[in-house]
Amino acid sequence: MDISRCSINSTTVRSASLDQLIDLAIDNDIAGIGLWRDVYAPLGVTRSAELVRSSGVRVTSICRGGMFPYRDGEEKARILEDNLRAIEEAHAFGAECLVLVCGGPNGLGLDAARAQIREGMEDLAGHAQSAGVKLAVEPMHPMMVTERSAIASLAEANDLVESLDHPSVGIALDAYHVWWDARLRQEVLRAGGKLLTVQVCDWVLPLTGLLSGRGMPGEGSIDLTSFVRLCEEAGYDGLIEVEVLSDLWWSRPYPQALKAALDGFAGI
Amino acid sequence: MDISRCSINSTTVRSASLDQLIDLAIDNDIAGIGLWRDVYAPLGVTRSAELVRSSGVRVTSICRGGMFPYRDGEEKARILEDNLRAIEEAHAFGAECLVLVCGGPNGLGLDAARAQIREGMEDLAGHAQSAGVKLAVEPMHPMMVTERSAIASLAEANDLVESLDHPSVGIALDAYHVWWDARLRQEVLRAGGKLLTVQVCDWVLPLTGLLSGRGMPGEGSIDLTSFVRLCEEAGYDGLIEVEVLSDLWWSRPYPQALKAALDGFAGI
Repeated sequence: MDISRCSINSTTVRSASLDQLIDLAIDNDIAGIGLWRDVYAPLGVTRSAELVRSSGVRVTSICRGGMFPYRDGEEKARILEDNLRAIEEAHAFGAECLVLVCGGPNGLGLDAARAQIREGMEDLAGHAQSAGVKLAVEPMHPMMVTERSAIASLAEANDLVESLDHPSVGIALDAYHVWWDARLRQEVLRAGGKLLTVQVCDWVLPLTGLLSGRGMPGEGSIDLTSFVRLCEEAGYDGLIEVEVLSDLWWSRPYPQALKAALDGFAGI
Repeated sequence: MDISRCSINSTTVRSASLDQLIDLAIDNDIAGIGLWRDVYAPLGVTRSAELVRSSGVRVTSICRGGMFPYRDGEEKARILEDNLRAIEEAHAFGAECLVLVCGGPNGLGLDAARAQIREGMEDLAGHAQSAGVKLAVEPMHPMMVTERSAIASLAEANDLVESLDHPSVGIALDAYHVWWDARLRQEVLRAGGKLLTVQVCDWVLPLTGLLSGRGMPGEGSIDLTSFVRLCEEAGYDGLIEVEVLSDLWWSRPYPQALKAALDGFAGI
């Protein structure tokens, strides 16, 4: 796929500073970057947002808000506060969406966690709309259901987003989390215009961990070409973000990871 | 749950021989056992089946047939031959079903693998019926899609089983593989009378591997009480098999694993 369609997520080149991330985007004609909140924490939001805006590089996503399930009112308030801050940050950067990793059971059962996720989304949607920020629910791989997200399939994310029926709520779709699903085609088409960001990486074995054992595009089993085509067929015309959480690639200098990411992207 | 509803799978007490497995069932008033094919290989099928039949212990499942995806005609023939042998073995033991682990892409894409799985099932169903054996498609956890089974959700298994519409084809349902699914309730009720065996173990973190990092019932995150009740609501009235693939429990003497399995079962 042409590099003009590429966005690089900060975690793919995790040891790069925000300055370095902007520079590598400009130097390689990469149109967008995705930002984890830790990458702009050292400089602060205001200064970081100025830097990014003046560079002309698009911010395809901020990662992350969410983690809705709570055990008591105090925790609920703390979670809401963090999510409101994430919305402010996404607004400051003019990000195309704020990715929501919705949270695991947190000591509750899955049903209870899902009810709290829905409640948290309802509380947040109006704030997001006021700030002009889109909230992107990310369905995550079922192996992450305990620790990361009770929203464990695209069907479930679609159910949630449709039932919320809010103009500021859509979907962040990462191939890694959904590629196994026999109903992928029908659910991606169902998501359609609700797709706010599309991310790619690859499924490689042996897995070195539930979170950060991912591969660069082309290193593993996922047919990313078909995946991206399917998202386009569903109406998605944004950038395609390369987001690779990888202990292996993190152990190498980030220019190597960048090269592998761009080579992999070109092969999609 | 009362021990009278329990079946112990041979892999849960993996170091026990078939004789020992039968003895432990009798000594503990366990009504059933599930057999991996390796446990009766040393004695041979005929002698093993005589032993089990004369003990009066039910065989709730034989594990496994399947692994349908093939790269060429020779491999296809070899796979069919192995599956026919597995059907004969299930018949010899009077097993309540033959569990099918359907196989991963085997170098093909997921769609192609799924088509070959369907084809393999069609080839096998008549043979199973002639032998009086039920084939139980096991939906497996999506994290196993590459290596073990392209059938990665109960919805997909239900789709396959319904479309085959064959009296000898149903479902093997293991909580470990499906507990994360927001549509679990509707899909279990949909499976209904097609549930041929129900298995339990638990989801424990950190995962020590994709295959054998499972916990005894009660050690992890799965609400097995609700799971078993749901299967009963769907009409399942067979034994509940404790099948725990666990590097940790395998490293201990099998009587310890048995005790943990029975204690866990009692807590369901």
